[in-house]
Amino acid sequence: MKVYVKCPSKVTLFGEHAIVYGYPAISASLGKYLHMTIEEWREGIVIMAEGVKVDGAAVHIRKDWEIRSLGYADYPKHALRYIITALKLIEAEYAKLKPAKIMVKSTLPVGAGLGTSASVSVATIAGYLKYLGYEPTRKEIVKLAHKTEYTVQGKASPMDTSTVTYGGILYIKPKGEYGEAYIENLPKIKPKVVIGYVEKKYNTGFLVARVRELLDKNPKIIGAIMENIGRIVEKAKQLIKEERWEDLGRLMDVNHGLLYALGVSTLELERMVYASRLAGAYGAKLTGAGGGGSIVALVPEEKAENVKRAIEISGGKAFIAEIGVRGVEVEKVKS
Amino acid sequence: MKVYVKCPSKVTLFGEHAIVYGYPAISASLGKYLHMTIEEWREGIVIMAEGVKVDGAAVHIRKDWEIRSLGYADYPKHALRYIITALKLIEAEYAKLKPAKIMVKSTLPVGAGLGTSASVSVATIAGYLKYLGYEPTRKEIVKLAHKTEYTVQGKASPMDTSTVTYGGILYIKPKGEYGEAYIENLPKIKPKVVIGYVEKKYNTGFLVARVRELLDKNPKIIGAIMENIGRIVEKAKQLIKEERWEDLGRLMDVNHGLLYALGVSTLELERMVYASRLAGAYGAKLTGAGGGGSIVALVPEEKAENVKRAIEISGGKAFIAEIGVRGVEVEKVKS
Repeated sequence: MKVYVKCPSKVTLFGEHAIVYGYPAISASLGKYLHMTIEEWREGIVIMAEGVKVDGAAVHIRKDWEIRSLGYADYPKHALRYIITALKLIEAEYAKLKPAKIMVKSTLPVGAGLGTSASVSVATIAGYLKYLGYEPTRKEIVKLAHKTEYTVQGKASPMDTSTVTYGGILYIKPKGEYGEAYIENLPKIKPKVVIGYVEKKYNTGFLVARVRELLDKNPKIIGAIMENIGRIVEKAKQLIKEERWEDLGRLMDVNHGLLYALGVSTLELERMVYASRLAGAYGAKLTGAGGGGSIVALVPEEKAENVKRAIEISGGKAFIAEIGVRGVEVEKVKS
Repeated sequence: MKVYVKCPSKVTLFGEHAIVYGYPAISASLGKYLHMTIEEWREGIVIMAEGVKVDGAAVHIRKDWEIRSLGYADYPKHALRYIITALKLIEAEYAKLKPAKIMVKSTLPVGAGLGTSASVSVATIAGYLKYLGYEPTRKEIVKLAHKTEYTVQGKASPMDTSTVTYGGILYIKPKGEYGEAYIENLPKIKPKVVIGYVEKKYNTGFLVARVRELLDKNPKIIGAIMENIGRIVEKAKQLIKEERWEDLGRLMDVNHGLLYALGVSTLELERMVYASRLAGAYGAKLTGAGGGGSIVALVPEEKAENVKRAIEISGGKAFIAEIGVRGVEVEKVKS
């Protein structure tokens, strides 16, 4: 028995940070994949991860849930923590675990705000439930994957797990704390997307807390910025439906300015967004929590290579990405 | 008969761009001076300007107002245009002009958003009226100086001319088109101010028009940003009264983010504001219309040299400035 899982990552196009306060956001699945295989094993659960910040690391989880690291002591802080949490939740809500060897490989920059933790969580849940013989619906997958993120992080919006599970371009408006959300599928975005990224200086939790502090000190001003980001999301949804790409790009620039006002941009991110705009992007903004990490540029197809190169010259790494790809896919490759 | 005029420049601390739409702003006189002398002359009016983009240029205005350039053909586009317009308005509203030699010298970067055009206009009106034997009130000076700017630029807020005429730290809320404004004196700002500047890529008129276009396309979103800048100004006024400099600095950062969202920042400005913040400023923002030009950083006294140097390393020119200095001063130095 061997299960293969292919899970996209995600990029937030509009609305990050404000979604924490209940405003909607627009996110898209990103055609950079996390690959996972789950196959039979003698005893316990062995996890081998490559490219998820723990290259070559392996952990061995014994039947009694005493977790033992093989060669990499620091794993619980990183991606493996999501896998282990997901497995524990599966045991709590579905059935006793079976021995398995889980291999995971990602080509994505971890912690760059591209949703690797959601991809890891979703892939584990979708794949391991299949391995146990279940056929969960996408809704069930999202629910448990969000619970995984919530357990690990203390707080999580349902955006990332929904986006990588369902795929496509999603308008998401949270309802309540626990992963409930109103979700609407938006039509395809025709221009290309270029992602640029640099090392992250601050983690998401720190940035969310700093925004909260700024909000507490200036409730009216920062509250109005959050509300205005919500307004941008509504307008962006309309522009996507009307295929007004230039106006959509300008709106990304405006959204970026408001994120800047929340204090989550950095000079390294500015270099990349300006490089993108100067190289012909319709617009560009940081994506995710900020404090370093990634930017997303909306780009006419014939300018994509230019924009990619401009970001690289400005000091970042970059790739041209497909967005709106299919969500998580699970396949039984051996019975 | 010789009149000497010393006129400060100005820096906008909060509220630029939004003031165009009727919201208040806070500006301060800046201890970088424009010097003007007006003395007797044989025939016509000769204007010699130094440091106002027309180094060493001289124009000769004949009695019949046929303007003749001596050695610098392009003067009407620059500062001299304000002098000539001011003289024409004096002739229209006060008395026939007398021959004079006007010498003007500024140490300020023209077009960097530090109000040189207002200083030139105010100095000409205050000085030349004195030269003619008038003793205008400051209110009368502001009125005619604003009219000068309005005539040259097509549109002008009363902020610049009021600030360099009255001096101090001013909260200004425009009432109507023609230079009327509610003005309130604010207490001294104790931290230092460091000004950084780079060449301006776009002129004020172009930037104001571009913001207008963005507003027309996104009336609710951009309108909300303007309204929020107004809210920042009210909060800043309160923080100045309470001497809460750290919070005031953070609010400058937020104001800068909103200006960024209006599309008037540039990468060169970002380099300077980030350099300032990293070097220990309470906060930093672009000042004036943007598109290049100047930034203002609020800085604890012991960090002022650091911040100045950091701006220079980042590619700008910089100086530590006194703000809230006295407004225009006119002196008869020879009778």
